[in-house]
Amino acid sequence: MTTNNKQKENNSTQNSKQNTLGLTVTKHQDIAEWYSQIILKSEMAEYAPVKGCMIIRPLGYAVWQSVQDYFNKWLKENKVSNAYFPLFIPESFFKKEAAHAQGFKPEVAWIANKYEGERIAVRPTSETIIYDAYSRWIRSYRDLPLRLNQWCNVVRWETEATKLFLRTREFLWQEGHCAYATHDECEEETKKVINFYKKLVEELLAIPVLLGEKTEAERFAGAIKTYTIEAFMPDGKALQCGTSHNLGENFSKAFNIIYKGEDETDHYVWQNSWGVSTRLLGAIVLLHGDDKGLVLPPRIAPLKVVIVPILFDKSKETVLKKARELEEKLQRKGIETKLDAREEYSPGFKFNEWELKGVPVRLELGPKDVEKEQVVIVRRDTGEKCFVKFDDITKTITTLFDDIQTQMFTKAKKLLESKLFIVKDSEKFKEVIEARGIAKTSFCGKPSCEQVIKDKTAGASTRCIDIHEKKLIIQHCINCGEKAKYNVYFSKSY
Amino acid sequence: MTTNNKQKENNSTQNSKQNTLGLTVTKHQDIAEWYSQIILKSEMAEYAPVKGCMIIRPLGYAVWQSVQDYFNKWLKENKVSNAYFPLFIPESFFKKEAAHAQGFKPEVAWIANKYEGERIAVRPTSETIIYDAYSRWIRSYRDLPLRLNQWCNVVRWETEATKLFLRTREFLWQEGHCAYATHDECEEETKKVINFYKKLVEELLAIPVLLGEKTEAERFAGAIKTYTIEAFMPDGKALQCGTSHNLGENFSKAFNIIYKGEDETDHYVWQNSWGVSTRLLGAIVLLHGDDKGLVLPPRIAPLKVVIVPILFDKSKETVLKKARELEEKLQRKGIETKLDAREEYSPGFKFNEWELKGVPVRLELGPKDVEKEQVVIVRRDTGEKCFVKFDDITKTITTLFDDIQTQMFTKAKKLLESKLFIVKDSEKFKEVIEARGIAKTSFCGKPSCEQVIKDKTAGASTRCIDIHEKKLIIQHCINCGEKAKYNVYFSKSY
Repeated sequence: MTTNNKQKENNSTQNSKQNTLGLTVTKHQDIAEWYSQIILKSEMAEYAPVKGCMIIRPLGYAVWQSVQDYFNKWLKENKVSNAYFPLFIPESFFKKEAAHAQGFKPEVAWIANKYEGERIAVRPTSETIIYDAYSRWIRSYRDLPLRLNQWCNVVRWETEATKLFLRTREFLWQEGHCAYATHDECEEETKKVINFYKKLVEELLAIPVLLGEKTEAERFAGAIKTYTIEAFMPDGKALQCGTSHNLGENFSKAFNIIYKGEDETDHYVWQNSWGVSTRLLGAIVLLHGDDKGLVLPPRIAPLKVVIVPILFDKSKETVLKKARELEEKLQRKGIETKLDAREEYSPGFKFNEWELKGVPVRLELGPKDVEKEQVVIVRRDTGEKCFVKFDDITKTITTLFDDIQTQMFTKAKKLLESKLFIVKDSEKFKEVIEARGIAKTSFCGKPSCEQVIKDKTAGASTRCIDIHEKKLIIQHCINCGEKAKYNVYFSKSY
Repeated sequence: MTTNNKQKENNSTQNSKQNTLGLTVTKHQDIAEWYSQIILKSEMAEYAPVKGCMIIRPLGYAVWQSVQDYFNKWLKENKVSNAYFPLFIPESFFKKEAAHAQGFKPEVAWIANKYEGERIAVRPTSETIIYDAYSRWIRSYRDLPLRLNQWCNVVRWETEATKLFLRTREFLWQEGHCAYATHDECEEETKKVINFYKKLVEELLAIPVLLGEKTEAERFAGAIKTYTIEAFMPDGKALQCGTSHNLGENFSKAFNIIYKGEDETDHYVWQNSWGVSTRLLGAIVLLHGDDKGLVLPPRIAPLKVVIVPILFDKSKETVLKKARELEEKLQRKGIETKLDAREEYSPGFKFNEWELKGVPVRLELGPKDVEKEQVVIVRRDTGEKCFVKFDDITKTITTLFDDIQTQMFTKAKKLLESKLFIVKDSEKFKEVIEARGIAKTSFCGKPSCEQVIKDKTAGASTRCIDIHEKKLIIQHCINCGEKAKYNVYFSKSY
């Protein structure tokens, strides 16, 4: 391969970790390196030639498609239509909503080709281009609610180091954009979406989250309220998994989105926007992965069962025949199954490879098993083994999937709870944050106070306001001592 | 709405055609204007603020999703995995394959942000970025065949006038990229793909096509062979609907994609690439649409049946109750049905609106129909009406869908055949091309000769080589008189 440019060399170096089979660090030793190795070696994704971009390989993309399928069903049930808006946005659009312009300014990528002298942005998010269209499409209360979603790529010209799935210059996401006649309807649906996100992440990805509202400092640029779901990783850092923004009338005023009401007078529409991205794939890796590699929850694993036959010269044909029967039987039941009949690799090599790739269940089948009409079932998540009779196989596996899914969630939930501390004084606050925990405490809500805390703690910020438990833990702000406004969760974050 | 920039004004003017209900020109009068009006007024798509881009609205996107669903099933059956490669490609990658670089040079959009001094392109197609990865991923014959596909947006900085779906600077497509150990396997699958494209376009979209090979002049930049499917529009212009390129070893040599064979020596891989795009939506509109608007084939119509109740004060409740029952009955059978119970619009207005949007079947239900336990069924394609008893409704509609789909295809096929002429002399050639027909004749195959014909005929070019009928129509080239190489189809094109 001719490497005649620097990107390519960097890229080759970064991706070359792939060449050694198996992980060379444990999750505990160096979680950042472990994370990168898992993604490269399991072939979920890799670094692209242009710095900050990624290639999503078939395994990673298949997981994303599972998310999309689940999501598209919900969209249909909730009367949200898919559409597609352009990648390119005129600079003037960004300037219309002041807070939004300010928030996205530093990270916009621009096209060298201009139009009518104006700069053209590559979309970092699509509020402005979509709401320009809404200002043409919405005329009457009969056009409301208008609920659209798009699946697309977005670009944010990050300057910090690339982390596959978690911080890349281009990523994939969905962005929902709805317009309503009233504030209440808008707020209700903004919350409906965040609750759906919680369900998606918890039930599909087995990732427990805290659901809450962002403080002013952490709110989306241009929103009046941002709801969020926050997962917690084993290194004690929070990972924002999805957000739903109540935009109020901020954008409808900036873009002049007006409808004539039943009262025959003009009103601005109320809007929300919401999104989840391929970042979710990073959360799955970080939270569930172990020292052997990826651990995929059965509900999203594109390959759910791998059959590894134990082959000896004499019994080879008998074992392979039975293995093929098993494969067909499971596939007929709609369970994605693969028989790994490669003869050039040992069973041990295959065990490692499929463990690295996170396949939830492995079946081992040797000549003695065939005789006894049984198969060995090995769970990826716990490594537990058991024998199952051929006749019981589909039933056992179906039950096992539910059990794995539940146990993965429960284990993650316990981790989250073990990191979470109710904090009543600054001594304890410091201690929890330094130990990479989550401090739940009371806070004044001021952005300036939040900045002070961030500086003091080398980066801890509010993850969200607890919107369920309104009773204050302490009456005064944990930092400034002024009157506390609500309880919040503080931690470091990705 | 504040229109403070020129794009916006242009854009508003272009899209404003929407404001008049119904089409103001017939297909026969001015097909270009008719085409644009249909797309805007049926709300399939519209012009975006940045010149040359488009917004795909829910109706257009839903049709694209139907194509995607059908396509993804085929990918799975044929062991092609979906993946995602970056939007951004380093300039040096384009330069590696000379013909490819030359072919795409004029229409690449560039990013203003640079990396390591090198320019970054927005992908116009992804051969180069994908094959750079293949050079890392492919090592052994065991890694072959490697079959990937991606669904994405691509950008080509067109300078000619925008035509929604047919010529836009950004569009959506799928691009398949496969690598094989042998020439024969590669060629076989390149043809398998073009045959699948023919099936997709003919069976799903009811668009008959000619399948053939491109001449040297029309071949994909970097391919050794390009197969194509070509549809013919009512204005006598061909529309290329999909292409499958045998890239030979051109890219594997440029990108050093080498595998160690079973013979323990190194070989270059053989590759193909293939794609269809949102251009297909343009073909559907142009071919099937009529003076009332869009006509969608039942297999891809997102809404298949609309029920329009004929409401009078006295019988309103009875009719609406029955209409709701019908709606539920059809929906339970999986037939996408909508009851249009809006009271602010007359039945006539609703008929026009749903005809404009191309819904294949309309049910009309008045008080007399309820009494007689019947409903009026109206076909969108022919306008034919008939009465059907409530009990027979689902059966009748299911049969009707098949009938509509077949008739739409048959009608289009007749159109194609009526435009196609076997041509044996230059007099007749001129006559056919001037009458906007397709001339099937014999040709020498030389790019220079093809250019002469193009100049003479104000743009007629070869659409494809007839790969089925090898016997020459005439022994000498229709233009230069030298020895003919094969039979080709000549016509103007989109």
